[in-house]
Amino acid sequence: MATATNGKRPINLAILGATGVVGKELLKILEQRNFPIGKLKLLGSERSKDLHLPFKGKDYPVEVAEKESFKGVDLVLSAVSADLSKRFAPMAVDYGATVIDKSSAFRMEPSVPLVVEGVNSHALHNHKGIIASPNCTVTPVVVALKPLRDVFGLKRIVVSTYQSVSGAGSPGIEELEDQIQAYTRGDRQKHHVFNKQIAFNVIPHCDSFNKDGYTKEEEKVIQEARKILELPDLAITCTAVRVPVMVGHSETLLVDFEKPISIEQVREILKTSEMIELWDNPDEKLYPTALDVAGNDPVYVGRIRKDTSSPNGLHFWVVSDNVRIGAALNAVHIAEYLVEHKLLRQAVPS
Amino acid sequence: MATATNGKRPINLAILGATGVVGKELLKILEQRNFPIGKLKLLGSERSKDLHLPFKGKDYPVEVAEKESFKGVDLVLSAVSADLSKRFAPMAVDYGATVIDKSSAFRMEPSVPLVVEGVNSHALHNHKGIIASPNCTVTPVVVALKPLRDVFGLKRIVVSTYQSVSGAGSPGIEELEDQIQAYTRGDRQKHHVFNKQIAFNVIPHCDSFNKDGYTKEEEKVIQEARKILELPDLAITCTAVRVPVMVGHSETLLVDFEKPISIEQVREILKTSEMIELWDNPDEKLYPTALDVAGNDPVYVGRIRKDTSSPNGLHFWVVSDNVRIGAALNAVHIAEYLVEHKLLRQAVPS
Repeated sequence: MATATNGKRPINLAILGATGVVGKELLKILEQRNFPIGKLKLLGSERSKDLHLPFKGKDYPVEVAEKESFKGVDLVLSAVSADLSKRFAPMAVDYGATVIDKSSAFRMEPSVPLVVEGVNSHALHNHKGIIASPNCTVTPVVVALKPLRDVFGLKRIVVSTYQSVSGAGSPGIEELEDQIQAYTRGDRQKHHVFNKQIAFNVIPHCDSFNKDGYTKEEEKVIQEARKILELPDLAITCTAVRVPVMVGHSETLLVDFEKPISIEQVREILKTSEMIELWDNPDEKLYPTALDVAGNDPVYVGRIRKDTSSPNGLHFWVVSDNVRIGAALNAVHIAEYLVEHKLLRQAVPS
Repeated sequence: MATATNGKRPINLAILGATGVVGKELLKILEQRNFPIGKLKLLGSERSKDLHLPFKGKDYPVEVAEKESFKGVDLVLSAVSADLSKRFAPMAVDYGATVIDKSSAFRMEPSVPLVVEGVNSHALHNHKGIIASPNCTVTPVVVALKPLRDVFGLKRIVVSTYQSVSGAGSPGIEELEDQIQAYTRGDRQKHHVFNKQIAFNVIPHCDSFNKDGYTKEEEKVIQEARKILELPDLAITCTAVRVPVMVGHSETLLVDFEKPISIEQVREILKTSEMIELWDNPDEKLYPTALDVAGNDPVYVGRIRKDTSSPNGLHFWVVSDNVRIGAALNAVHIAEYLVEHKLLRQAVPS
């Protein structure tokens, strides 16, 4: 029987949704970090069945995902939609695999750990086969808040987002690209991924609308931050806005803390976090933007200043590569943690 | 002696900064609204002295602004920088003119009314020659808040902006246009108006930085909202962000009210305002965006919903044409109010 749990032998790994933006980024990161892979399976839809993708100098065919695909697989990195995850993840778990899922399918299920590795990794010790990785907008929020929460306590959080089109996958990137090309040709600009033209516009509408007027994206930021920070009643709110940026989510964060804060102390605390890069010097016009951080791993923080509307309030500007840290990198970090702590389940032998 | 105060005879009008984005919009609006102009003078810098601009089918030369230019002028609409306003506005006032200034030069002077016509027009009755029009980012904020404040009382306001490049005038528009053209040619993108590339990026940096970490733009929103609403201690804060949109400022507003609110009541109140258009129906994916509103007069409000982080909190999404309502239209509205209420000063006869 395959024993993936000993942390010694290479892992039989499947990437579900390998040809998407996040799938390709997963391959890149696994190669960069030299993750110990035994057999590698690339799984996709009917549409991508004739494709091949390179990994460590070798070409791998993309197979059409089906139940049997998961036989003998120890670990599935799932980068498909919530609908597809709901269909495939239980199949993989049935074959004994552990699934790290970037979709929203299982995030709010009480039995599924929702984890940003480095923020609440301890929750991984209770997994039952499926582990959820949060929305790419909430990851930088909890990364920035975690170390400050431990010192000052969180009272209220107000988030406004400036989310790139890659948050909607390859089709989002293509739509912005097409609209820019049409603009320079003087042609009419069409849209089908976003509800309105995104080129030269900003759209306060990510994902679909709920009955209460919030979008699902906004609800995710609120609910997932509460779950990851283990503060089910945390006062947090969000407006999520799509902007014509290819890669990189930016966010304004206003945080009211329980205790008085000093800017110097905040800076010192953030500096000690391995996941954070502080780019914050107004005198030198230093602050992060999406174009600066695309392709990089950290959460970048700048524009730190005291709030003018509350006594213990603090403003941040937080920017990160949503494809990388928001989705792919966290999945690989979780995988590494599972291997290191011998938390992978045992695959049914193929 | 010329008596501009009787509201009967045409006004001798000068536009200072006529060739800029706001100057040209002023001409358009004066023509559309058939403002009663006697003599029209277009004033500019040395650079624009050979230019002509059309008005009501006639071509007007642009004259280089100097002290003597203001002789016999009843009303100056000033659409130049704060530095130039500081230089020219007192000259015009010396000649008896009334100056409506869109720059920040005089806004916070206690003796100068800072007015959004329709919000605090009563302040115009105390003017002493110079009247300031607020920053284009604060106008939609106070237009949306004024009617609600009267009913529910304001406790705290949090603003994040999504400001178009036209807020930086024609050079801002040209820079985005050049960067887009360079992108489609595959060339390197240069910048000098904005601190970073604005195409495919968002930049949390409008105007220069103060010592406290806020930008001057953010300070303006805070200070000017307090002055216009006549609430000097109002708890309000702002993060101002430039986005790659040509025209139209969007903003997220989170408002904590003193009293409990109902969404229905909020909608009813906003609907009664002549300055506001409500575009708010999530079921039909109805909300305003910059591309929808460019060229229009109202302040558009959408995405109204209860806050998830406070009991009496409310979210809005506010969009307006920053060139039009934010700068030019308000100046013309103020001019019309001055004429109607016989509040123009008397020009020294030329």
